[in-house]
Amino acid sequence: MERPDRKGTGQGNDVLDTALTGQGLWVWMYCRLYRKLPRFHQQEILSAAIAGGEFLLAYACPSADSLKCAFVVTRNGQAVKIQRTIFSECFYVMAMDELWRTTHEERYKKAAEKMMDQIVHWVREDPSGLGKAELPGAAPLNAMAVPMMLLNLVDQLCEGDEDMAKKYEEVGKWSVEKIMQHLQRDGKAILENVSDQGQELPGCLGRHQNPGHAIEAGWFLLRHAIAHSDHSLAQTSVEKFMLLPFLSGWDQEYGGLFSFQDVDGHCPTQLEWNMKLWWPHTEALIAFLLAYQKTRDQRLLEHFEKICDYVFRRFSDPEQGEWFGYLNREGNVALTIKGGPFKGCFHVPRCLYMCEEILSQLLATSNKI
Amino acid sequence: MERPDRKGTGQGNDVLDTALTGQGLWVWMYCRLYRKLPRFHQQEILSAAIAGGEFLLAYACPSADSLKCAFVVTRNGQAVKIQRTIFSECFYVMAMDELWRTTHEERYKKAAEKMMDQIVHWVREDPSGLGKAELPGAAPLNAMAVPMMLLNLVDQLCEGDEDMAKKYEEVGKWSVEKIMQHLQRDGKAILENVSDQGQELPGCLGRHQNPGHAIEAGWFLLRHAIAHSDHSLAQTSVEKFMLLPFLSGWDQEYGGLFSFQDVDGHCPTQLEWNMKLWWPHTEALIAFLLAYQKTRDQRLLEHFEKICDYVFRRFSDPEQGEWFGYLNREGNVALTIKGGPFKGCFHVPRCLYMCEEILSQLLATSNKI
Repeated sequence: MERPDRKGTGQGNDVLDTALTGQGLWVWMYCRLYRKLPRFHQQEILSAAIAGGEFLLAYACPSADSLKCAFVVTRNGQAVKIQRTIFSECFYVMAMDELWRTTHEERYKKAAEKMMDQIVHWVREDPSGLGKAELPGAAPLNAMAVPMMLLNLVDQLCEGDEDMAKKYEEVGKWSVEKIMQHLQRDGKAILENVSDQGQELPGCLGRHQNPGHAIEAGWFLLRHAIAHSDHSLAQTSVEKFMLLPFLSGWDQEYGGLFSFQDVDGHCPTQLEWNMKLWWPHTEALIAFLLAYQKTRDQRLLEHFEKICDYVFRRFSDPEQGEWFGYLNREGNVALTIKGGPFKGCFHVPRCLYMCEEILSQLLATSNKI
Repeated sequence: MERPDRKGTGQGNDVLDTALTGQGLWVWMYCRLYRKLPRFHQQEILSAAIAGGEFLLAYACPSADSLKCAFVVTRNGQAVKIQRTIFSECFYVMAMDELWRTTHEERYKKAAEKMMDQIVHWVREDPSGLGKAELPGAAPLNAMAVPMMLLNLVDQLCEGDEDMAKKYEEVGKWSVEKIMQHLQRDGKAILENVSDQGQELPGCLGRHQNPGHAIEAGWFLLRHAIAHSDHSLAQTSVEKFMLLPFLSGWDQEYGGLFSFQDVDGHCPTQLEWNMKLWWPHTEALIAFLLAYQKTRDQRLLEHFEKICDYVFRRFSDPEQGEWFGYLNREGNVALTIKGGPFKGCFHVPRCLYMCEEILSQLLATSNKI
């Protein structure tokens, strides 16, 4: 995908590749905005989403006998790169399910469910279809992204659908358990990678922390807790998955969330560890506002306001619109691009849409009092 | 590999993985220092290099019927990760050839030659053994790293060996031609990625520049030009592969070489694009000193001195030794680690050793005058 520059115009020429991961996400986003917010209920938004979804249906799987999706394809749909993970497939499920909810066309729903079942099979039964060689030294790992994605998909697929809620209840439960394995060190830290049995791993892999990711897991868990009236899970999601990583991950000197940390305070090996990226901040805004809505704990609203203040002062571009994606530690723009291989039409609009929804509910409630 | 912290001590526990790429490089470095510099002619250095080399011989190839090397193995040699590139294999060749030159044990020489022939086969005839799926949208690409590595290996294998020089003469010639394809835009820029036919590629992939890499290619080419008394190639290597990327890649505001640039001046998509990394500076020191030795052009010595001044003021740690690897744009330390997944015992000692060798030759010559 060619990224738009600061003004949002493309920089290159026509012969450009398309990242299907990003495509699944924007199809989902367009449908969600069209479906939920009257001011986005516009034909051109729906048409674009359908065109994107049809492209995915036609070209996401390069092989007819496998549901493995390409990560990047050419503009005319030829596979350029295939990852050995499940994420392109997960975003395909999100796009298809939301397209079904928006258009009511059953074939989108069927495509979503078929892919979801394949993903669950790869994750829980047999990963060999992902194309990763089995190596004797590569012990199975519980990377938080995988159960997080599954929990998010369960949330997506089960909205207002009792049959699906029943079908995927056990997958949701399993995902919550696997996410909980990342709460380590007597409940004092969230670690990104643990063993398949939930033990802390040796070395910097085991010490790796991603505050934005932990906070995102927090609001996934809180939504699940609310849907299942699970008070204990709700409390854990706020205390452990939001407050812990926020309090340790916030840069006391310059503000903003660090991208990566080492739980023992060593220097991470990731070059961008102290950069401030847009997406952890969007996750934190959603998390603390949802947590405040659930608990009415004033402290959580204060955190939301603190993040808001940083975000709209630092990431938002009042001159030409949109948010910058990448600031240096001090909070100055390090990359002037507005979109790129990982910043597309997703985190910012999802955050603004969800926060608008929660704030509207909060206002509606307060008006009733 | 667990990286050493600022003091150079390990941070983690015993059960750590080993990056074989780095291991090939330090085996090469230990042997070279032992072989070339009397003050490093110590038994413990040789013993460590042999132990490292024997580990590579025993465990680098996870499969008995393939020369494909692992990228990471456990401490007891079990494969953790295999890359679909040729670089672990190339560093294996460097280690084995230098071990042979140091110990005169033929089996190291044989291992080097066997792997070299396999690499040439993968690069020039049939890449299928690398494990990369053939995808219809993935057109063959000339990434500069590949011919650069081959040229470097030819340099290594042919030192003082007429038979090898004859055997690999054509590979060397081919590598030079493929590197020359990266000189684009009427000789005004070095681009990292071009088509297999040497055409500029569309999009940010085609506009991508890596000044340190281009300068490294410069001194590889210059050594080849000197060995083959090729005056025209020597001139091109200095003018186009050293001066062009140095003049455009040097940060006029804060000093130091940018990590990545976009040839049209757009913002690169790599998060670390404006960070100052140790290794491009070590390559530039070697390049400009060698170029000065060859040409006696005073301008080149001035560039060497300018880089020296930056490097020893910014990267070198006078308190605890070694160089830091990663500075922010302003030249302040961004990662306090002295070693990591990509910074091992290679670029700094290779640079210091080569510069010492060239400076000694320059002094010897000037004394004769």
